[in-house]
Amino acid sequence: MIKALSESARKAGAVLAHATRAQKDAAIEAIAVALQERESEILAANDEDVRRSRTEGISESLIDRLTLNGTRIAGIAGGARKIKALPDPIGIVKRERTLPNGLHLKQVTVPFGIVGMVYEARPNVTVDAAVILLKSGNCALLRGSSSAAKSNEILVNIMRDAVVSVGIPADVIQLVPSSDRSTVTELLHARGLVDLVIPRGSAALIRTVVDEAKVPTIETGAGVCHVYVDKDGDLAKALPILINSKCQRPSVCNAAETLLIHSEIAGSFLPMALKALNDAKVIIHGDQQSVAAAKDLGINASLATEENWSTEYGVLEINVRVVDDIDQAAAHIRTYGTNHTEAIISENPKSIESFINQMDAAAIMINASTRFTDGEEMGFGAEIGISNQKTHARGPMGLEEMTTTTWIVTGTGQIRG
Amino acid sequence: MIKALSESARKAGAVLAHATRAQKDAAIEAIAVALQERESEILAANDEDVRRSRTEGISESLIDRLTLNGTRIAGIAGGARKIKALPDPIGIVKRERTLPNGLHLKQVTVPFGIVGMVYEARPNVTVDAAVILLKSGNCALLRGSSSAAKSNEILVNIMRDAVVSVGIPADVIQLVPSSDRSTVTELLHARGLVDLVIPRGSAALIRTVVDEAKVPTIETGAGVCHVYVDKDGDLAKALPILINSKCQRPSVCNAAETLLIHSEIAGSFLPMALKALNDAKVIIHGDQQSVAAAKDLGINASLATEENWSTEYGVLEINVRVVDDIDQAAAHIRTYGTNHTEAIISENPKSIESFINQMDAAAIMINASTRFTDGEEMGFGAEIGISNQKTHARGPMGLEEMTTTTWIVTGTGQIRG
Repeated sequence: MIKALSESARKAGAVLAHATRAQKDAAIEAIAVALQERESEILAANDEDVRRSRTEGISESLIDRLTLNGTRIAGIAGGARKIKALPDPIGIVKRERTLPNGLHLKQVTVPFGIVGMVYEARPNVTVDAAVILLKSGNCALLRGSSSAAKSNEILVNIMRDAVVSVGIPADVIQLVPSSDRSTVTELLHARGLVDLVIPRGSAALIRTVVDEAKVPTIETGAGVCHVYVDKDGDLAKALPILINSKCQRPSVCNAAETLLIHSEIAGSFLPMALKALNDAKVIIHGDQQSVAAAKDLGINASLATEENWSTEYGVLEINVRVVDDIDQAAAHIRTYGTNHTEAIISENPKSIESFINQMDAAAIMINASTRFTDGEEMGFGAEIGISNQKTHARGPMGLEEMTTTTWIVTGTGQIRG
Repeated sequence: MIKALSESARKAGAVLAHATRAQKDAAIEAIAVALQERESEILAANDEDVRRSRTEGISESLIDRLTLNGTRIAGIAGGARKIKALPDPIGIVKRERTLPNGLHLKQVTVPFGIVGMVYEARPNVTVDAAVILLKSGNCALLRGSSSAAKSNEILVNIMRDAVVSVGIPADVIQLVPSSDRSTVTELLHARGLVDLVIPRGSAALIRTVVDEAKVPTIETGAGVCHVYVDKDGDLAKALPILINSKCQRPSVCNAAETLLIHSEIAGSFLPMALKALNDAKVIIHGDQQSVAAAKDLGINASLATEENWSTEYGVLEINVRVVDDIDQAAAHIRTYGTNHTEAIISENPKSIESFINQMDAAAIMINASTRFTDGEEMGFGAEIGISNQKTHARGPMGLEEMTTTTWIVTGTGQIRG
């Protein structure tokens, strides 16, 4: 089944790969307009998904992610227009040189070709991913979850109609049936038929995709992020950064899971932090000093276990530890972290430099919230995911990350000696 | 076992990651000097490998790859000095911007950390890989073949002594024992302990590594490369390019396997090409027209099968086909090629553009030999391999390809709204 989808995508992709920016932008605009014009169709299909999911006993938090409304649809259309406003990532010359033998070398960006997405309930991913892939000249094979089947179907149909209206073949955007699990397996085994598969969703989904895939994948997710408050940290900055990093959206990968405090400022900052976390209804796990300090304030705190230190909570829970110095903080992060996003709060340039040098992370935040590791916040437009691997892309992935390159070597008859 | 190697590499790597260019270059120079000073030790160890391999009945072509001599050692030292002369790939700012909220973003290159190499007989890879990885701030875990065990051991010892002499810890370069196959498996399963594994060798070795690995890998190899001679091709260029592409070193991935000729010039070029190939002792497989033309010239040629068109010969054999036009040539290449290197011989800019647009290759050669897809030829210094995948790196991989990035985000207390 993937073979048939891939073959029609290859044909359509041959047109898309060489579409001009104007054509691709016109397609995206047509998608944005159609999403709003056909809102009632989308809401009807989504309502069907929501009702079916409720009878299947899906959790209210998943129902929330699945549900669309006028505001959310406007948000999705607005996201598409942000991508439209960005430069074309295709045809960019990355390196260029002329060799002594007269050969002219040019490395230019080209699309991957066919990119598969495997993702969970949220139907906005259907449009976000398709639009990013469209603008980067790639065909999209979208495998959403069965709970969003009707929503995804209408969204894909709307997008296919829209691209056709500006002369791009419909098959650049295709839905992979979500009726059973075998379509995921087939997609992950489709060597030569699919150029890349990106998983987006729970840690379990990502693990399955990466482990099972015979095609190239980009691993997203898994963030055990830390906020380290240095002895020279400005506590007036540290407190809001801590609360924002932990509480603003605890379910996502760039939320903080552990607070590390330099022992020299623990006397002042530890009680402040514990009180603020408790006020924000965050459950506290701590080392002995933190647990004792919490007890003094009448705040409940349990002694953190090895498991606590390495857990990505995804909810309002945090670990707190007092460290001797920056080296101990760095050693803790290297032991328990996932190299996603690590923050330091310090006004001391030497401490900041030492922290940066000891990290091995996709992003390092200096006096800023861990929550900023995000494509939209970082000016990429919508993102297709946050890579937590070191090859190809690291951190938020936008248009540029959805390209590969070709070397074009121009000669006048050169041969190798 | 890999765990122990990885742990000592992590410690050593913390020093190497922040070494200055001067320090890394001094280490490389020390390696180059020591290789020549300790030539007799290397030759003695290599002689032991060669003699043992001969008694084990290893083929003469493998013996040739295994054998070192004074010239080859000087060549390896010279290769190291080429890497030394190249700029430091670490700490390069790839993107930089200040956001409206005042956050300053900087994406800088950093080393992967620990890179494993799995490779076959040639002991020069031991030094080439270690030096590229050293200059790019990475620790090397080198898993060569058992046939080169003694040579690899002395080469690694020489390099370890050399780096120590300039203050870099020895454990940035480590040999993985080649005594049995289990060390390869262990390396490929070492998630979290090894950041990347690169296979270099036969198609079978590469396939095994990519299929078995739980760690990130970069796929190298597999080249079914084509030379297409267009109706507007300059035949005086076409003939030497054809012979160079096929014959200069048939065993490598950038050698050509198939010649495609536009029907309009087949009358003149087909006999020229068949005669030149036959003179160069190349076995010919062809379509009906080519086989008939060969017969007319008294040259042996067999009818090419489906299998022929998709075979990477690696020896002096070639497929020849006359095509109606550039579109048919492109369709043939898309069907049977491996997206490695494709050459067009043409003086017509429109044909060249059409060819480029229809290819999906790591490299496209215009009026030049396919043999130029090579790191050293393209000015990368020595190469660590040629990537034939689309993610991370495509085509020859040198220093730049052995880096990843970190986003450094500097704020003044920013939080997300």
